[in-house]
Amino acid sequence: MDLFDHLTATAGSHWTGYIDHEFVRRMGDGSLPAPAFRRYLEQDYLFLIQFARANALAVYKSRTLDDMRAAHTALGAILDVELSLHVRLCAGWGLSSAALEAAEEHPATLAYTRYVLDCGQGGDLLDLHVALAPCVIGYAVIARRLAPSCGASHPYRDWIMEYAGDAYQSVAMRARAHLDRLAQRHLTQERAGELEKIFATACRLESDFWQMGLDEPASHA
Amino acid sequence: MDLFDHLTATAGSHWTGYIDHEFVRRMGDGSLPAPAFRRYLEQDYLFLIQFARANALAVYKSRTLDDMRAAHTALGAILDVELSLHVRLCAGWGLSSAALEAAEEHPATLAYTRYVLDCGQGGDLLDLHVALAPCVIGYAVIARRLAPSCGASHPYRDWIMEYAGDAYQSVAMRARAHLDRLAQRHLTQERAGELEKIFATACRLESDFWQMGLDEPASHA
Amino acid sequence: MDLFDHLTATAGSHWTGYIDHEFVRRMGDGSLPAPAFRRYLEQDYLFLIQFARANALAVYKSRTLDDMRAAHTALGAILDVELSLHVRLCAGWGLSSAALEAAEEHPATLAYTRYVLDCGQGGDLLDLHVALAPCVIGYAVIARRLAPSCGASHPYRDWIMEYAGDAYQSVAMRARAHLDRLAQRHLTQERAGELEKIFATACRLESDFWQMGLDEPASHA
Amino acid sequence: MDLFDHLTATAGSHWTGYIDHEFVRRMGDGSLPAPAFRRYLEQDYLFLIQFARANALAVYKSRTLDDMRAAHTALGAILDVELSLHVRLCAGWGLSSAALEAAEEHPATLAYTRYVLDCGQGGDLLDLHVALAPCVIGYAVIARRLAPSCGASHPYRDWIMEYAGDAYQSVAMRARAHLDRLAQRHLTQERAGELEKIFATACRLESDFWQMGLDEPASHA
Repeated sequence: MDLFDHLTATAGSHWTGYIDHEFVRRMGDGSLPAPAFRRYLEQDYLFLIQFARANALAVYKSRTLDDMRAAHTALGAILDVELSLHVRLCAGWGLSSAALEAAEEHPATLAYTRYVLDCGQGGDLLDLHVALAPCVIGYAVIARRLAPSCGASHPYRDWIMEYAGDAYQSVAMRARAHLDRLAQRHLTQERAGELEKIFATACRLESDFWQMGLDEPASHA
Repeated sequence: MDLFDHLTATAGSHWTGYIDHEFVRRMGDGSLPAPAFRRYLEQDYLFLIQFARANALAVYKSRTLDDMRAAHTALGAILDVELSLHVRLCAGWGLSSAALEAAEEHPATLAYTRYVLDCGQGGDLLDLHVALAPCVIGYAVIARRLAPSCGASHPYRDWIMEYAGDAYQSVAMRARAHLDRLAQRHLTQERAGELEKIFATACRLESDFWQMGLDEPASHA
Repeated sequence: MDLFDHLTATAGSHWTGYIDHEFVRRMGDGSLPAPAFRRYLEQDYLFLIQFARANALAVYKSRTLDDMRAAHTALGAILDVELSLHVRLCAGWGLSSAALEAAEEHPATLAYTRYVLDCGQGGDLLDLHVALAPCVIGYAVIARRLAPSCGASHPYRDWIMEYAGDAYQSVAMRARAHLDRLAQRHLTQERAGELEKIFATACRLESDFWQMGLDEPASHA
Repeated sequence: MDLFDHLTATAGSHWTGYIDHEFVRRMGDGSLPAPAFRRYLEQDYLFLIQFARANALAVYKSRTLDDMRAAHTALGAILDVELSLHVRLCAGWGLSSAALEAAEEHPATLAYTRYVLDCGQGGDLLDLHVALAPCVIGYAVIARRLAPSCGASHPYRDWIMEYAGDAYQSVAMRARAHLDRLAQRHLTQERAGELEKIFATACRLESDFWQMGLDEPASHA
């Protein structure tokens, strides 16, 4: 069993609550209301910016050139590719670049992103990557589960196929393998509980991120 | 006008929404249900631990011995005094030490505390102290407003009098003066908007922290 | 006067001692012994790895996507281009990849690189870029001064022409402009002295880095 | 064998070169010239300020209240006790407070202190404490070796007895035990080599710190 499978097993309902979240299920069956998806997309854009910072932190904390280059590639994928894809995807849903730039981070966005960054600042590279795993690897798991029922006219086909596609699936597989390499270097029996807690917390915060899409906008948002 | 007054003025409803939050008003008139206060107390204990880390970061980022010593005093006040006070206060409300140790951080706790830490890690000492100000100075403002109507048998008298008392009020006054000294050194016109945004975001997250007390416990908590 | 010119003016002999260092002069007139250059090259390779981490830190600390992308580009230039160029340049001087990987960081390398990183961790983006300036911009200044007397058979022609060439000169010009943009956002009169001290210290440590090349290898190296 | 003994054994001549450095031997037999000791004292004052920051970083990176409190105590010992003791010791050797405040950090001071801080920022709490160990524990080892031959009129009696005394010896013993607790939590076989390298590097940089005292002041100092 690799580390990621171990973490999902120990996270239990935190993990399943995240990958089976109502937002996910309704995205899968196409019943998710467009405004919910738009709220998600907007915050996911802001999320990506912080996610880029997390990868920069991973470069900073790397002890080998290989680790530095891997994190740099991930950083470049966000800054050079994903953010632009996102702007295009958002445009298709009626969210202009200007709206994205002006958007305010939702508490759910702040909670997960800053938690991840602090896991990295307070701990080591393994802590950081475990905190990122529900996002990096979890999206691949979710999309692969949704893909089979995703016909040509599915309203969320673009999103599902981006993450179910070979390119992203192999990003996720490399991330799993990287977790295992880091674990080999840094994982002790005494740390296992701490990492399981980080992973479970990150799953909880990812669930809140889905929930934010479903919730009516709060007065302060 | 000192920096703190400027920040509260520009934060507008984010600031007033925080200091006039329903949780605060009901604490003031004594109608706040005990379970809500207990939920708050439990999370505030976990909050204090992160708040100690924020002060440690302030020591780390200080450029003068005076700043280091001020942050170290604040750190000691938390680790040596406030946490024990808190344990005692919690015991009076039926929350054992064991319950506090076992408690899981609520998303609202994670959001504010990690946001503050990241403001410090990503920026400078002024960013960090502006992010902390709604808490450090805001509690003094809130308690002073509640104190006049707080009779001897008021259920939340201990909390209100701790923060309305001379000792804490002078902590807050020193924090205001410190903000002004940091502003003199680090504040430019171009940064004003950024600091106003940090302060407003911190107020929003503090409001969510009050709201967490009022909300029914979520299934994942 | 832009910020960089101001900093070199106030650094005085720390700046001139760095750009006119005996190592530089002897590189310029071709009299620098090959072993001295090899010692420099080896340590400069290790320096570049830390310099990549400094750029990763700059991404992390950036507040705008533009700043993030600029730092990411600089990071990529090191990881994808400069390190390989360096390996090739080293090979030409008889230093194998294996020798580079096995080399131990000299105290002069540790001092400058970790000082730069700490300027960034303890301060803000401006502190970090001021600490990097003697290297990023200084190399362009030095190479342009050496280039006119650098004939086709000059032993250090590769090094001089790399940094005197248009590509690197425009890197340095962009770095100067970036410093000015950061200064507009973050520079106050009260901070000027602190930044001047950072710059002067960085020049001192760069001089020590040249001196390391000239010195006989210490017993522990 | 505890971790500290393991680290000194693997550091070999880096460790013995540090604890048997000429500066130490001449301090021990009283032949160390006063100016050398004064140079050391001045830089050690600046060192202590950075050492306080390292302990603040340890508070920040702690995962348990016990670890936070231990690091906070160490921080307080520096800010509240050691710096004042140092000022007094310096006064006895003709170094005024004003001279200490005006002193510039020597490259050897910059190298060791910033290396330690970066070990902590780049790694975890164990990396940080291993980098600090040659200083925190090494001083106790050195002083205990020098104490037997240190008569009442020994010129360096104050220094030797401070670190050979029971109070400091038990600080060092607690630091050894803390290293072992951290190792139990964080040490894997794969990390051993990395920690040995950190320790050996820190010993090298401590030797350079002694050497700085012996060297004639450089022109830039």
